[in-house]
Amino acid sequence: MASQAKKLINDPDDVVTEFIEGLVETYPNLQYLDGFPEVKVVLRADISPATYDKVVVISGGGSGHEPAHAGFVGEGMLAAAICGDVFASPPVDAVLAGIRAVTGPMGCLLIVKNYTGDRLNFGLAAELAKSEGYMVEMVIVGDDCALPPPRGIVGRRGLAGTILVHKVAGAAAAAGLSLKDVAAEAKRASEMIGTMGVALSVCTLPGQATSNRLAPGKMELGLGIHGEPGVAVADIQPVDMVISHVLTKILSPESNYVPISRGNRVIIMTNGLGATPIMELMIASGKTVTKLQLEHGLAVDRVYVGSFMTSLDMAGFSITIMKADESILQRLDAATKAPAWPVGVNGNRPTPKFPVPMPPSSLKAMNVSSSRPRELSKQGLLLEAAIEAAAKAVIDIKDQLNEWDGEAGDADCGSTVSPLKVSSSLPLAHFFFPPFWLPAQYLPVLQLFKGATAILEDLKNHYPLNDAAETVNEVGTSMRVMGGTSGIIYNIFSKAVSAKLKGSAISPKQWAEAFEAGINAISKYGGASAGYRTMLDALIPASRVLHEKLDAGVDPVTAFVLSSDAALAGAESTKGMQAQAGRASYISEANLQSVPDPGAMAVASWYRAAASAVKERMSAS
Amino acid sequence: MASQAKKLINDPDDVVTEFIEGLVETYPNLQYLDGFPEVKVVLRADISPATYDKVVVISGGGSGHEPAHAGFVGEGMLAAAICGDVFASPPVDAVLAGIRAVTGPMGCLLIVKNYTGDRLNFGLAAELAKSEGYMVEMVIVGDDCALPPPRGIVGRRGLAGTILVHKVAGAAAAAGLSLKDVAAEAKRASEMIGTMGVALSVCTLPGQATSNRLAPGKMELGLGIHGEPGVAVADIQPVDMVISHVLTKILSPESNYVPISRGNRVIIMTNGLGATPIMELMIASGKTVTKLQLEHGLAVDRVYVGSFMTSLDMAGFSITIMKADESILQRLDAATKAPAWPVGVNGNRPTPKFPVPMPPSSLKAMNVSSSRPRELSKQGLLLEAAIEAAAKAVIDIKDQLNEWDGEAGDADCGSTVSPLKVSSSLPLAHFFFPPFWLPAQYLPVLQLFKGATAILEDLKNHYPLNDAAETVNEVGTSMRVMGGTSGIIYNIFSKAVSAKLKGSAISPKQWAEAFEAGINAISKYGGASAGYRTMLDALIPASRVLHEKLDAGVDPVTAFVLSSDAALAGAESTKGMQAQAGRASYISEANLQSVPDPGAMAVASWYRAAASAVKERMSAS
Repeated sequence: MASQAKKLINDPDDVVTEFIEGLVETYPNLQYLDGFPEVKVVLRADISPATYDKVVVISGGGSGHEPAHAGFVGEGMLAAAICGDVFASPPVDAVLAGIRAVTGPMGCLLIVKNYTGDRLNFGLAAELAKSEGYMVEMVIVGDDCALPPPRGIVGRRGLAGTILVHKVAGAAAAAGLSLKDVAAEAKRASEMIGTMGVALSVCTLPGQATSNRLAPGKMELGLGIHGEPGVAVADIQPVDMVISHVLTKILSPESNYVPISRGNRVIIMTNGLGATPIMELMIASGKTVTKLQLEHGLAVDRVYVGSFMTSLDMAGFSITIMKADESILQRLDAATKAPAWPVGVNGNRPTPKFPVPMPPSSLKAMNVSSSRPRELSKQGLLLEAAIEAAAKAVIDIKDQLNEWDGEAGDADCGSTVSPLKVSSSLPLAHFFFPPFWLPAQYLPVLQLFKGATAILEDLKNHYPLNDAAETVNEVGTSMRVMGGTSGIIYNIFSKAVSAKLKGSAISPKQWAEAFEAGINAISKYGGASAGYRTMLDALIPASRVLHEKLDAGVDPVTAFVLSSDAALAGAESTKGMQAQAGRASYISEANLQSVPDPGAMAVASWYRAAASAVKERMSAS
Repeated sequence: MASQAKKLINDPDDVVTEFIEGLVETYPNLQYLDGFPEVKVVLRADISPATYDKVVVISGGGSGHEPAHAGFVGEGMLAAAICGDVFASPPVDAVLAGIRAVTGPMGCLLIVKNYTGDRLNFGLAAELAKSEGYMVEMVIVGDDCALPPPRGIVGRRGLAGTILVHKVAGAAAAAGLSLKDVAAEAKRASEMIGTMGVALSVCTLPGQATSNRLAPGKMELGLGIHGEPGVAVADIQPVDMVISHVLTKILSPESNYVPISRGNRVIIMTNGLGATPIMELMIASGKTVTKLQLEHGLAVDRVYVGSFMTSLDMAGFSITIMKADESILQRLDAATKAPAWPVGVNGNRPTPKFPVPMPPSSLKAMNVSSSRPRELSKQGLLLEAAIEAAAKAVIDIKDQLNEWDGEAGDADCGSTVSPLKVSSSLPLAHFFFPPFWLPAQYLPVLQLFKGATAILEDLKNHYPLNDAAETVNEVGTSMRVMGGTSGIIYNIFSKAVSAKLKGSAISPKQWAEAFEAGINAISKYGGASAGYRTMLDALIPASRVLHEKLDAGVDPVTAFVLSSDAALAGAESTKGMQAQAGRASYISEANLQSVPDPGAMAVASWYRAAASAVKERMSAS
């Protein structure tokens, strides 16, 4: 069933005109010729034919291959690009107008892809320009390697390799060579290249229906850039195998398309056909380099990856291999202002791609494994009691937390959704990947249980309990077993608290300040505040009351216990709160009046347990 | 019905690893860190933390947004990119390793997109790095304008505008500013940007099934870059309307997301989401510029178009608007070696985009309309007789040519297929566009009839018959009414013959040489030779016999007639020939044993008619 292809365009008849308008707005060095939009010629804005003292290089052809050819106009590459309608050769008059607009006394080289229409239209324009007194040469590029050596008229089609010929010729022209020499370099370059394409989809002309030629699970090998069917249709295979096939075809000694043999140096161009993600192009490119080196015994001097010669919205790529030598490398590396020519590719090869050694931590102490002191200080005993009680409290209310989690989770509240209870309204990605754009309050309760269990385990032997700062730090480290967002939040909390706890005897006031620093760190990195239905709704009131009571001279243990009342009240108050998910559009609103935030309730539990344990231990002593 | 998405990859689990391998092969200035592939950090190959005396800028996040972020690593932008798995925040250890690998004494700025996972992982890494003695600052970017001003935790998502913050911060760092100042510039830049996306398709995670969320004919507005549904689903509209909507959202005074008002200067970034052709991006970009200028009263200083922050294989784009001032322009224009930063964009704006005037022809004679002389020379009379007879001959055998054309056309032979008789095996494009990659011998007979009729008309008044060269030239011009390939072929033929016919009294030998020159031009630009089942199979034998007979001293008129026998014999011989279509795969083979090539038969007819007319006229005189 063919359906209208989706395209973000206006009138299908205006796509080329509007493309050119966008292009010249984007690049100040590009300009278009009078007669536009009938005459579609993009030219360098900085040269005048009367005074230009170098050869100009002109190319063009049907549109639908963007950025080719107009994106390669610029100093060092093309002086002008003649644009036809989509997949239609430009008319003779447009080619002639383009020649006249940029050609100076040094003459003009036309680079033409091997299609009959282009050959004839550019050819007649060349003959007409010559009869007007211009010096004109023409080089035809046919780099396609998909078909057996040609027995007929069409021969090898011009594909993405043409861009490499543009670059060589453009650089030769910019270097001041004569027309004869520029044409000779272009001709030679055209004989060094072989290209083959692979497609996952058929391109759709603007305003037309999508072809159903290519079935699900199928790909085409050896296609052209105008929607022509490929030489073969095959099941989609791993890209490794696809590339092996393509390279074998291009480098085949039987067809002898390119004069490349073992030990030679080559350049590769991995060209997206219009709708191919850069990730896939880079994967293909990396594999191509490896295979050329290991399987074909070739040295790879340059790698060009991107969309150079596309076929509208076709998904797939072509691989071009070019035989390299110093002269060609010099032309390819020469500076150009053409906006679509890739940058950052030059440089000596092979660049050794051994990994950069991982730098060691500068903190020597990181290597020292901490351990429980033989004898605990008074503070150490208190700390032990508080940590143990807090961890056990979380474990004790595990079922209750899970119940709240379930109720809120079923209601699609982002605050408590667990990995196994994902609403059907969430995108598919959630089923397989950490939904890391979910709100910070996302806190799988089962993972909290896992953290508490780890703490109890580490408490036995590993915490240096007489050093409060280091112990709090270690508690955070224990909780990293939780993984995910909640593990990190608790770790950030511990890290920030720890950083404030300096010295061996820590005052209640210092504890309160450290507690506050931990809360601020959660808020800063997690992005939540009070009232967002998160653990902060328990932590913030607890901290406030703790400070108030200490400031008012209440004894520290009582202040701790009173602040734990505030934590519980704060956690309970989340019942009235809506989850503050910015992406409410995909997390449907839920009535959470009767369910508190489990993350806040967990805080209230462990905080109260710690306070009670300290009170008990202090009364006992 | 969801089906497996088509992707050119290997194991879905390896896509990020293999992307990075391809990336570092492509760009010699990029390197990866030890611990790869578990630790996925791409870094500048040219800096060493121990000696680097500038602030480093680091970014990163989930993968699937290529070229972001690794493609923006390079002098003048990022020092390192920390890559998570697809759509998953990188782990704290990877971020910390990246910080350690590049950060020198001047410190490190982390630029983080506003997602909870990234904020927390980068945040914890920052805290850990600080505890190791590094100077670290963090700037969070949230440029999404699709949603109402945030009431909650997630706030505005980080989208493509983040790249502009990378550039500003990277340039500030390269300029030698302190960490505090680099962070301040990044923060300020982040407050100047607004972004909104539009998608035609939902992205598909490697190895997963394609979502059927977005129906045919529908688009999503205000989507994120991780497959989250958009704020609204709408019917696909002309891109003009889509852009109007997007700009209104970004610049809304109610949401007040960006401090841009009428009269301000702005920068735009048109960002492809992964599977969007450059043609569509440029169209959208051009329209955005115009609308910003005309409808919003803004001056557009820079336009960046390309794929910067993608979402795997999503089709669509985002538009980013940034408020510009001299300081920001200076940072954006500063040189960078980051391979994915666009080139050719710098320059004074507004560049007047008035068309370059069309250059006049340098041939003064072109303006002189030729006309029939009052009195014809002997040669003029012969020429008139030959042209008239030749044109009439083509008209006379029109029905026969059409019959052959039909037989051959029905048999799907590319050599004679007419625009209205296209095989169903040809791609759809053929129905709507000139099939310009078809073989040169493509010659719609009806058009030949049109050319002959035009010649008879022009013969009455316009041909300067006493000037043979100019007359032959004009015959070619008359035939341009035919349009298409055949009109151009005959025009090239005439132009080349004409160029050889210099002087007023032309010898038979000169005629023969001119005829040969015309044949060579057809062969050169059309790409055919003898035996390709084209008009050349009549022309070449005729030329050969003409030369032979003249060389043997046969009288010119007899030689002409004898050569016309050879033309007919040659045309008849095409019955045994197969069409030499290089693309035989889509033009099915046909048995053409009984049908000659109509193009060759047409040549034989007009050539014989011309010879007979000359003979008759010579006997009469």
